[in-house]
Amino acid sequence: MSLLVIGTVAFDAIETPFGKTDKIVGGAATYASLAAAYFCDKVKIVAVVGDDFPKSEIEDLNNHYIDTEGLQIKEGEKSFFWAGKYHNDMNSRDTLVTDLNVLADFDPIIPDSYQDCEFLMLGNLTPQVQQTVINRLHKRPKLIVMDTMNFWMNIALDDLLATLKMIDVLTINDEEARQLSGEYSLVKAAQKILTMGPKYLIIKKGEHGALLFGEGKIFSAPALPLEEVFDPTGAGDTFAGGFIGYMAKVGTVNFNNMKNAIIYGSALASFCVEKFGTEKLRNLKPEEIAERVQQFVSLSKFEIL
Amino acid sequence: MSLLVIGTVAFDAIETPFGKTDKIVGGAATYASLAAAYFCDKVKIVAVVGDDFPKSEIEDLNNHYIDTEGLQIKEGEKSFFWAGKYHNDMNSRDTLVTDLNVLADFDPIIPDSYQDCEFLMLGNLTPQVQQTVINRLHKRPKLIVMDTMNFWMNIALDDLLATLKMIDVLTINDEEARQLSGEYSLVKAAQKILTMGPKYLIIKKGEHGALLFGEGKIFSAPALPLEEVFDPTGAGDTFAGGFIGYMAKVGTVNFNNMKNAIIYGSALASFCVEKFGTEKLRNLKPEEIAERVQQFVSLSKFEIL
Repeated sequence: MSLLVIGTVAFDAIETPFGKTDKIVGGAATYASLAAAYFCDKVKIVAVVGDDFPKSEIEDLNNHYIDTEGLQIKEGEKSFFWAGKYHNDMNSRDTLVTDLNVLADFDPIIPDSYQDCEFLMLGNLTPQVQQTVINRLHKRPKLIVMDTMNFWMNIALDDLLATLKMIDVLTINDEEARQLSGEYSLVKAAQKILTMGPKYLIIKKGEHGALLFGEGKIFSAPALPLEEVFDPTGAGDTFAGGFIGYMAKVGTVNFNNMKNAIIYGSALASFCVEKFGTEKLRNLKPEEIAERVQQFVSLSKFEIL
Repeated sequence: MSLLVIGTVAFDAIETPFGKTDKIVGGAATYASLAAAYFCDKVKIVAVVGDDFPKSEIEDLNNHYIDTEGLQIKEGEKSFFWAGKYHNDMNSRDTLVTDLNVLADFDPIIPDSYQDCEFLMLGNLTPQVQQTVINRLHKRPKLIVMDTMNFWMNIALDDLLATLKMIDVLTINDEEARQLSGEYSLVKAAQKILTMGPKYLIIKKGEHGALLFGEGKIFSAPALPLEEVFDPTGAGDTFAGGFIGYMAKVGTVNFNNMKNAIIYGSALASFCVEKFGTEKLRNLKPEEIAERVQQFVSLSKFEIL
């Protein structure tokens, strides 16, 4: 089934203990759509870039069967740019530059050819823009997944709460779940957040895996223990993209399918962090993904007689 | 099969955001043996208390089929006492009092009737005392599990490293694994620690579960997401006791049995934190444990077709 991904398509400059990059292509919609495209051949992007964004990069997205009709190119303007430096533990980072550029007044225009989308991924953007996308779709998608961050809880909480009422699945990390709910216990936090609108909540815990709450059930997904995390940038977006891409592939929305979707999303995220930026994500073979998923199976399987 | 548990039997005074206790019975050997006794009816303690330790408490251990012949009672001396206060997040605590008392010159004497023990749990104590116990056993046990902490890495590293060469399974938390190995990645940390002596390493991650490394494999066990952690004291000792108690029950040492042992240990630890001290641990029904273990099964089970 077709999938609409909204989010940033941008330039990143990344520094980790293993090296640094010049401006490379990044952004939530880039990571999420590249991940989703491994499962779904009808991924459509809504995003905005400046005329500094290379045509070859857009063609590369198209080569991954990602539809870029909804990618606006603003003449005479510059693409969103973020620069950051990770600390030695790779769990924290300093933002060095955030140039909003074209993102400052982004109006998400939905091409007519996108109106049939049954799955919608709202990548991390202002809650107002996320809401606008939902409102501009003539038919409500079968599944709406929303990513957000603490920044919007701090400066746009009312918009965020209004948007939460319109979605199905929220993906945030453990600290954000605690901030949004005011509860330290993640079980209590989830109970509270599930009264705010979403029917499902995914709490991302990085190297500790992820928790899925919904239908009165909890699923705990492991993270693959990695020898080295090379660059964590985009791991959360890749996870979300893999998650909704898998859901669009299977088509039926229920807790069991979401469990597998989380495993596939986690598998793609575990590839993503192995190289800088989107490099690893652009060149995976289906058998590599299948093998990685089997690692998740053997990692967490036990049999109580 | 019979199981020897060495560790502290002590008094604790605990303060959490939910309340506080006067002196209650605690100590690593108390928690570990109570947990192990749910699986193994031949649990034998080696520990030391003062004459302030109530006879009724020793009888209560005996009522749980715990052999206390190796529990030394020092006339005119006082039992080990620890007082601590947990912070609001329950993940960190301040130690208010540590009175070593009888523990200061603890000489672990092994009764003859204990010499047949095939499983040995070395609760957290000085590595020197842990080593003495191994040396005093005429026959090397089939499985030696050792718990330790960062404190001994700081002040008795050489003794600790010497003791590590004599054991089979080490249980430490993630920060301790990083400190002991000098590696941030837990995979690299485990690889290094497994060259130091132990054949298996269990990394305890609290609310994030546990990792088992050994035989070239990794197992990731979930933690049960809890609405409320009432008192985390003794959770690690309960986990270790449940782990080795289950291993003593099944008798065969291999990776698959250890996976289940970790689930049983985690289940008992999840009960332990529901009340102050050892209270919950003293009154569990087998069917409660079986039900809790099933919660771990449904929490982590998924099926990739």
